[in-house]
Amino acid sequence: MGETIRIGIAGYGNLGRGVEAAVEKNADMQLTGIFTRRQPADLVPLHSGTAVYAMTDLAAYEDDIDVLILCGGSKEDLPQQGPALAAQFNTVDSFDTHARIPEYYDAVDGPARASRKTALISAGWDPGMFSINRVYGEALLPDGDTYTFWGRGLSQGHSDAVRRVPGVAGGVQYTIPSETAIDKVRNGSRPQLETREKHVRECFVVLADGADPAAVSEAIVTMPHYFDQYDTEVHFITAEELARDHRAMPHGGFSIRSGNTSAEHAQVIEYGLTLESNPEFTASVLVAYARAVHRLNQQGRFGAVTVLDVPPGLLSPKSAADLRAELL
Amino acid sequence: MGETIRIGIAGYGNLGRGVEAAVEKNADMQLTGIFTRRQPADLVPLHSGTAVYAMTDLAAYEDDIDVLILCGGSKEDLPQQGPALAAQFNTVDSFDTHARIPEYYDAVDGPARASRKTALISAGWDPGMFSINRVYGEALLPDGDTYTFWGRGLSQGHSDAVRRVPGVAGGVQYTIPSETAIDKVRNGSRPQLETREKHVRECFVVLADGADPAAVSEAIVTMPHYFDQYDTEVHFITAEELARDHRAMPHGGFSIRSGNTSAEHAQVIEYGLTLESNPEFTASVLVAYARAVHRLNQQGRFGAVTVLDVPPGLLSPKSAADLRAELL
Repeated sequence: MGETIRIGIAGYGNLGRGVEAAVEKNADMQLTGIFTRRQPADLVPLHSGTAVYAMTDLAAYEDDIDVLILCGGSKEDLPQQGPALAAQFNTVDSFDTHARIPEYYDAVDGPARASRKTALISAGWDPGMFSINRVYGEALLPDGDTYTFWGRGLSQGHSDAVRRVPGVAGGVQYTIPSETAIDKVRNGSRPQLETREKHVRECFVVLADGADPAAVSEAIVTMPHYFDQYDTEVHFITAEELARDHRAMPHGGFSIRSGNTSAEHAQVIEYGLTLESNPEFTASVLVAYARAVHRLNQQGRFGAVTVLDVPPGLLSPKSAADLRAELL
Repeated sequence: MGETIRIGIAGYGNLGRGVEAAVEKNADMQLTGIFTRRQPADLVPLHSGTAVYAMTDLAAYEDDIDVLILCGGSKEDLPQQGPALAAQFNTVDSFDTHARIPEYYDAVDGPARASRKTALISAGWDPGMFSINRVYGEALLPDGDTYTFWGRGLSQGHSDAVRRVPGVAGGVQYTIPSETAIDKVRNGSRPQLETREKHVRECFVVLADGADPAAVSEAIVTMPHYFDQYDTEVHFITAEELARDHRAMPHGGFSIRSGNTSAEHAQVIEYGLTLESNPEFTASVLVAYARAVHRLNQQGRFGAVTVLDVPPGLLSPKSAADLRAELL
């Protein structure tokens, strides 16, 4: 097996907890510790043996961490932490604000390059594994169309939007891909699909005392951008039902490329994920890319990189020769 | 767009014809010509404008070809041509005898390295895109199982075996994945599947004059290795039906990784191909990898490489910055 890769976790929410679980599944890795902005004593890790430190003490662990996995959010945390920490550590993060990726890439690239560190940004599944499949799909079938469907899954952003509606005491939103639309895409006919045709949205809502269900429902389904372009169903449930039936964070989706290699022949490539836990899967992707980042850094590949720059073999604990013999 | 990549085709069967069609779909490529061991004048290319040369004249076109795509077979052609041509050209091939890949890799690596050429071996879909997905799957879900299903598709090797049975005048064999088995895998239960449970085999056979259908059927279904481990159906048809209904070469399959990221949560990754033309899709993969090989050679990556060594972004005609902005 060779050397052990030493991992640090910066930030400990659902994603950080997922990374703690994923490191344990990889025999060539060990966890140096969790770094938090909370009081370290207040944080309860998955495993009682996991060390917990203050984020402000990170610099003292430079020699004990091969790759630091940044588990903060894309809105508030990563724009600050990404560039700052890439000046001290090899890093992996899940920055997922698609429109700001080029700007974030540049912000991280400079400090990483100056410190001879490798910083892999925007790993996960979208951006991440879906991006990889969009690139492969376009390259293999240049005369084609790409379709991305999300769900069935809990959408954090849309759930937040539901909970902000006056009269809502609690709730969740699931994004559901339309089977009819998927079937059209799978048969290779390359349909033009409107936003409304691709997904439906399903909300489970707990009403606040005295709230009017009709008014709440109307406010949700007509909400600009979030719901008005979709067919949305609203179900009212009790607080007990919400707690009992909607705690899991399933997600997933499909990335499909449909194209023609000649006038006679259509070809369809489909990549799909069915995830019982979105944060645990995202964490597993970050951890696999931490292995690749460690190796890229050893090869002298400094600066910012993305999943599109990483050869698949670098994610595996197996050697290139073993991969050729066993998995090619 | 920048420079044009000049492609040569060595060998012109179904795969070579597919490469001729695929080059046309890629605006940054042009075809220098087809090289054949037949009489060039006897070969009819897809497009009347395509140049056809004798294989023995290849050396004269060294300066006119950036990447030579080897379209010969894995049994007779590539073991000779691969090492020989990698000493003169950057190459891409579809060597698909899984058990001999390490040996073939070594045979190609030496000459390519000595001549500062880049030789990508074993591209296509299996080995190829399925291999990539096996590697990603293992790395992302180390506590998991990988399942590969092939079909529904025409199997060349099994069709050949059927045609060698005494009393058979013609025939084809389709490999069909079992829906029951696929459903078990998709639900994340990580079943143990016997060979017989995963695929069934369906043969369409034209009898020779006076042949005994019962004897032919028995000879097929009991054939060691090819059919005895499977449930096999044999249908007798006329020569006209064979010619009319079984000329297409559809194929495809699924590579599924099912794993657990914690005791509570199962995750399923699925990669699937539905191909109306197996050779045209394989050709499209080879052509996309030709672009990557051209770039790898320019970067100084000499010797043999496989799809597992190639970053996804190198397959795209788009720049890394455009890919980050548009597809990540």
